[in-house]
Amino acid sequence: MERDETRRGLVILYTGDGKGKTSAALGMLLRARGWEMRVVMRQFVKSRGLRAGEHRAALRLDVAIRAEGAGFTNRSEDRTADVAAARECWEACRAALADPTCDVLICDEITYPLRYGWLPVGEVLAALRDRPAHQHVVLTGRDALPELIDVADLVTEMRMCKHPHSLGVAAQKGVEF
Amino acid sequence: MERDETRRGLVILYTGDGKGKTSAALGMLLRARGWEMRVVMRQFVKSRGLRAGEHRAALRLDVAIRAEGAGFTNRSEDRTADVAAARECWEACRAALADPTCDVLICDEITYPLRYGWLPVGEVLAALRDRPAHQHVVLTGRDALPELIDVADLVTEMRMCKHPHSLGVAAQKGVEF
Repeated sequence: MERDETRRGLVILYTGDGKGKTSAALGMLLRARGWEMRVVMRQFVKSRGLRAGEHRAALRLDVAIRAEGAGFTNRSEDRTADVAAARECWEACRAALADPTCDVLICDEITYPLRYGWLPVGEVLAALRDRPAHQHVVLTGRDALPELIDVADLVTEMRMCKHPHSLGVAAQKGVEF
Repeated sequence: MERDETRRGLVILYTGDGKGKTSAALGMLLRARGWEMRVVMRQFVKSRGLRAGEHRAALRLDVAIRAEGAGFTNRSEDRTADVAAARECWEACRAALADPTCDVLICDEITYPLRYGWLPVGEVLAALRDRPAHQHVVLTGRDALPELIDVADLVTEMRMCKHPHSLGVAAQKGVEF
């Protein structure tokens, strides 16, 4: 792809408690692939090895979305596995943030490890600040720290107005995974 | 694809003034294509013949997104072309709503012709109600009519918290188109 160096990469944050945050990030992946931009996507919460619809379809667009979460067991107070998984996922994101061949980086559900203190926010902010000037970054997840909102160029809050779980409908293939 | 007839198709509405509504719909397209679900996507406002990033990438997933808008000229009070374009786009959506081989239908920016009275909302509601039971429908656009919110199973309002246009950054390839 020709890189237009006069363009400035944006930090885009999709937050809030409504559905559509990861879907919007996936839409950005699709759109960027239509221009042959190089996309990296890492998922902080979804369990390692997950192969849902988005993972399968993205492969057809030559993007290997990697889920790296420890699965949020909630079974113990020992967060060692969660912290290690967040660190590993972050190191992959940090490598992409230092890579000028990466045009779009999607850090899916990064707000959670930041909110829980599993990743130091200062380290994330510094890597965002120092990234290649053309690179777009998409961050998703509820309950974003104020520091993340400050650093983002575009912030959309997804507000849940109506949700099918409350209507007794199970999670559906092709909709939620 | 095997159809699981115990599943109920959902009507999903992405509305509000924030960015991410069409992107979220595109994410649903990607996810559904990962399961080989058949997706139809029509765009009520974007100009006919548009070939933006999403159109290009979707073709690689065997989905031909069709933009059918007259381009919202705003140059005259004569809305004949807009109304005709909305009608044509709606007829394509209505055909998909009657087609049991369509698993996911995306009506992008359908809220506008409904809000402007270019399409009768009763006709749209009836076609949604009578569609195949397994079919998911995604509706997008600002300022959805209350009748559309009522009929939707899942409604997310995208709230604009921060927008790059207000920061003097132009629309960017791979982000907004």
